[in-house]
Amino acid sequence: MFYIVGLGLCDEKDITVRGLEAVKGATRVYLEAYTSILMVQKERLESFYEKPLILADRDMVETQSDEILHQADQLDVALLVVGDPFGATTHTDIILRARALGIPTRVIHNASIMNAVGAAGLQLYQFGQTVSLVFFTETWKPSSFYDRIKENADLGLHTLVLLDIKVKEQSDENLARGRKIYEPPRYMTIPLAVKQMIEVESDRQGGVLHPDNTLAIALSRVGGGDEQRIVAGTLADLLTAPQDAFGEPLHSLIIVGKRLHHLEVEYAEAFAVDRQRWRTVASSIYGCALDD
Amino acid sequence: MFYIVGLGLCDEKDITVRGLEAVKGATRVYLEAYTSILMVQKERLESFYEKPLILADRDMVETQSDEILHQADQLDVALLVVGDPFGATTHTDIILRARALGIPTRVIHNASIMNAVGAAGLQLYQFGQTVSLVFFTETWKPSSFYDRIKENADLGLHTLVLLDIKVKEQSDENLARGRKIYEPPRYMTIPLAVKQMIEVESDRQGGVLHPDNTLAIALSRVGGGDEQRIVAGTLADLLTAPQDAFGEPLHSLIIVGKRLHHLEVEYAEAFAVDRQRWRTVASSIYGCALDD
Repeated sequence: MFYIVGLGLCDEKDITVRGLEAVKGATRVYLEAYTSILMVQKERLESFYEKPLILADRDMVETQSDEILHQADQLDVALLVVGDPFGATTHTDIILRARALGIPTRVIHNASIMNAVGAAGLQLYQFGQTVSLVFFTETWKPSSFYDRIKENADLGLHTLVLLDIKVKEQSDENLARGRKIYEPPRYMTIPLAVKQMIEVESDRQGGVLHPDNTLAIALSRVGGGDEQRIVAGTLADLLTAPQDAFGEPLHSLIIVGKRLHHLEVEYAEAFAVDRQRWRTVASSIYGCALDD
Repeated sequence: MFYIVGLGLCDEKDITVRGLEAVKGATRVYLEAYTSILMVQKERLESFYEKPLILADRDMVETQSDEILHQADQLDVALLVVGDPFGATTHTDIILRARALGIPTRVIHNASIMNAVGAAGLQLYQFGQTVSLVFFTETWKPSSFYDRIKENADLGLHTLVLLDIKVKEQSDENLARGRKIYEPPRYMTIPLAVKQMIEVESDRQGGVLHPDNTLAIALSRVGGGDEQRIVAGTLADLLTAPQDAFGEPLHSLIIVGKRLHHLEVEYAEAFAVDRQRWRTVASSIYGCALDD
């Protein structure tokens, strides 16, 4: 049996009991290499699971999956992935490959940012499509995310924006010399995300993202207890808040839609940079009827 | 501390290790009463958790939450809920109440249908807003779900449709006599859901839901191993498939949007009532370029 096990959002204890059983019973256990986005290191997982873990980077999972699936028709093999196996990064390729090889597969689900985003207090059924925002460079500023946010915004819906991570980047020099030396991972910060979004708004003038009139909520390490941070405010609030307000990466951002309900305002108010401004914008721009 | 613990989708082993620790350490443990939507009974949970569970129905969680929160500033109290605490049914009210009482709260996340729906092989970021479909009666046929599906469909997005459950219903006689005797829970089936949707399409003529040209995927007991069922086809396929094809409740339904990607078609093809028809509609109506 080939198991794909979601690890959930934060640390070694977010695995489910069923997932833990699959790990303990497996002959080989792979850990998908975006481990840097878990809050803990491989060694801590190994110690908790009482199993050695084989690191599997993206290439291995996507293009050399036969190595992972080797003999999984006779042995139990587990692949551990952060979040849910069908989260923002899906694992359909390797499952299709397992199918083609006649290997039975079992998916063990877990929380991912796609549902845990509810922690901000906005209703999940009020979210439109999810978008990703990548690091802009001087010459490459892909802005299709803006069209997606506008589609959602035109319907009054919230948008979950997933912020870019760069792992396994090579410096120009190492790349030129063919040295497989990688830079430390880079995570997009909330202020940078907001800056990029406002830059695209300035170009496009679609009236979707306004520094003072658009509400947004930043999230990091959802479910991570004391490490969880949720920060609500106007885009300008998030742009100017001190970096440490947002906690450790990964970060995600919600652009709040106009169907905003007063209970959503009330719940998220606890996370506001400036409670009065949060309420004022919700009331005067979003049209929420709030008690005062 | 007040813990709200997501139980995940299926049975007692879908709780996370962190959630299980919270249960074991709590002085009182409440189980939200929609237990009929878990695949297992309260007794089995109690035996696994080695804890007695106090049943809390919807009224208790929503209007008598002070009883649940009693002394939670000094003791550990846990409320167990199916799926994730911020899933389709949110628990923001009781958290707001805990906040007002100065009781620290910790949410322990888990999978819910809102992210586990990815098991059908459609990309989560291609989903628009989620809708609910309620049981129609002779006199009450709310159809706002149709507007929401149309909004998604106009953007080419998939729609997750959550099907109604009726619990704690009283018969007319018991209601009239004030007897608190409740009927067995009722779950909307996939064929009934499709029938209601086509009925609304006939009224509205919005061109959104066509028996032969609209693709859909039915899901039940996602993550439930051998009990999981995923069935893909045209709406007509789902309307006429034998009832037992869809497995045990709860059921959910995906209306497939036109941005459908050929990899999504390929993945879900394994679930198709009729593979050739699935591919033909995906190709000729949805415009997917498929190998043949």
